[in-house]
Amino acid sequence: MKKIINAVDDVLTEALAGFGAAHADLVSVNLNPKYVVRRDGPRQGKVALLSGGGSGHEPLHAGFVGKGMLDAACPGEVFTSPTPDQMLAAAAAIDGDAGILQIVKNYAGDVMNFEMAAEMAETEVATVLTNDDVAVEDSLHSQGRRGVAGTIVVEKIVGAAAEQGADLAACKVLGDRVNAATGSMAVALTSCTVPAAGTPTFAIGEGEMELGVGIHGEPGRERTALISADAIAETLVDAICKSIEPQSGDPVLLLVNGMGGSPAMELYLLYHAARTQCESRGLTVARSLVGNYCTSLDMAGASITLSRLSDDTTALWDAPVHTASLRW
Amino acid sequence: MKKIINAVDDVLTEALAGFGAAHADLVSVNLNPKYVVRRDGPRQGKVALLSGGGSGHEPLHAGFVGKGMLDAACPGEVFTSPTPDQMLAAAAAIDGDAGILQIVKNYAGDVMNFEMAAEMAETEVATVLTNDDVAVEDSLHSQGRRGVAGTIVVEKIVGAAAEQGADLAACKVLGDRVNAATGSMAVALTSCTVPAAGTPTFAIGEGEMELGVGIHGEPGRERTALISADAIAETLVDAICKSIEPQSGDPVLLLVNGMGGSPAMELYLLYHAARTQCESRGLTVARSLVGNYCTSLDMAGASITLSRLSDDTTALWDAPVHTASLRW
Repeated sequence: MKKIINAVDDVLTEALAGFGAAHADLVSVNLNPKYVVRRDGPRQGKVALLSGGGSGHEPLHAGFVGKGMLDAACPGEVFTSPTPDQMLAAAAAIDGDAGILQIVKNYAGDVMNFEMAAEMAETEVATVLTNDDVAVEDSLHSQGRRGVAGTIVVEKIVGAAAEQGADLAACKVLGDRVNAATGSMAVALTSCTVPAAGTPTFAIGEGEMELGVGIHGEPGRERTALISADAIAETLVDAICKSIEPQSGDPVLLLVNGMGGSPAMELYLLYHAARTQCESRGLTVARSLVGNYCTSLDMAGASITLSRLSDDTTALWDAPVHTASLRW
Repeated sequence: MKKIINAVDDVLTEALAGFGAAHADLVSVNLNPKYVVRRDGPRQGKVALLSGGGSGHEPLHAGFVGKGMLDAACPGEVFTSPTPDQMLAAAAAIDGDAGILQIVKNYAGDVMNFEMAAEMAETEVATVLTNDDVAVEDSLHSQGRRGVAGTIVVEKIVGAAAEQGADLAACKVLGDRVNAATGSMAVALTSCTVPAAGTPTFAIGEGEMELGVGIHGEPGRERTALISADAIAETLVDAICKSIEPQSGDPVLLLVNGMGGSPAMELYLLYHAARTQCESRGLTVARSLVGNYCTSLDMAGASITLSRLSDDTTALWDAPVHTASLRW
């Protein structure tokens, strides 16, 4: 294992301390229990958005804490769910007396712990479960589809609505609607390596790729020979469109996301290929995002996310956001 | 070689096409010859900033084209200087009749071609040569020190000055001053792989790192055993401080830059370690930047850059910027 770290047990604490110091104008980092909150919150009367999940997917979720997006994020250990005490402490810190919306990626551990926190919370809690990964139905850590990079689209759009004063019920309905309009699928060229494990999560040959890989290295649809960027784009866009069923002429958001170890040049090249695929299906790529947003540590690979847009969700996507990793 | 590409010969063109389509609100991409310009330019009476260099260091430089930073960037083939015809075409496209400032990283090919373009240009041209890499004096592709991630600090600060109306002579003086106040040094845990080569640029053992590596995989100061993040930070900060000689109490900008293959978690962890090193020397980390900004394709590793700040350069760093990769 080659990583820029000190002791394996200190990786998360030291990375969070660095994140907090680098973005002290935007966020406060609490280390015991671990959570990240907006420095300018809570705001009385605003629905508070809370997300979280295992670490190793940075910038998801802490990089999206700030104005117009999340009020708090709870990072678990690497690839491990955060605990209910983290969620409760974060919820108390962001509570503006208008309810808490939990945005939870569909993994068994996260679902269970966020449910427990919701039951124990003293304020009203609603939950949006994201399950945008069209690759497989059940997986190693999930019943039903996994929540992956499409979660960012949900967080951005619902975050904008909450900032504009939408109430808890409206935020919940909107989040479910955006999740249903969003599909993602990934490929891995290499495995990630979890610091505490010290060895790659899975073995993969020099000429192979994992099609439909999960963000923890979970198996996807199939192990295939490495194919071209154009063929990757066609396969992923095809699988996503079968799920979210956009109609010709529909505006879509196209997110090409790096898994952590692939350079920007390859992500923009894949974006070009994916956009061509969308256009050949009559879709209008109305909004775009390219970069490392929902990663899997040092895995080489990328995912494609498509989200069907409507007038209101487009305006909410465009609304101001001020976080460490999304800002406009 | 495992990369998300189609034909090796099409990598740059397809990546640029993707970049242009993803950021069509900000930039225009010309493919023959290849250059990227601000969509809202040229502005009459404004000094135009032109940079460029071999591709493979993304987002440098095209990701920094936009308001408050570069007016144009010329991407060469991977790790290969752009040609004078690219520079001349870009200069003509951005000329606002107030002169062109070229910002050039110190590599023999870039220096030669930018000099040739300056001689052929029909407008007044000044050049700032960046050489912030404190690792080694001469290198494979440079006489004197190499220009690396500190170039971004020069581009941001001089870009803001030009936006505010500074003339060509003032921009040149400012750029040289910022360059002299800035030092960088990198470590590599793995080699990059150039698409056209198909194999890693250099061999490195499982327990080894290259201390002071260049952004093309050039040798650094020494090949050592992998050391801890704290030890890396101490070694790099020490080498940089010996060069730029900040005094106790000085405000500095701290940039922790990923080389392309290292995840955000490791970069923030290294930022934490580097910040601790700065503070132990009595320095005040007044501004920070953490992420992949000056990369070496898929190389795992990171660089640290320190830049001594003064009141004017701090204000220019804080001035609005609107590019694909820096925005505030």
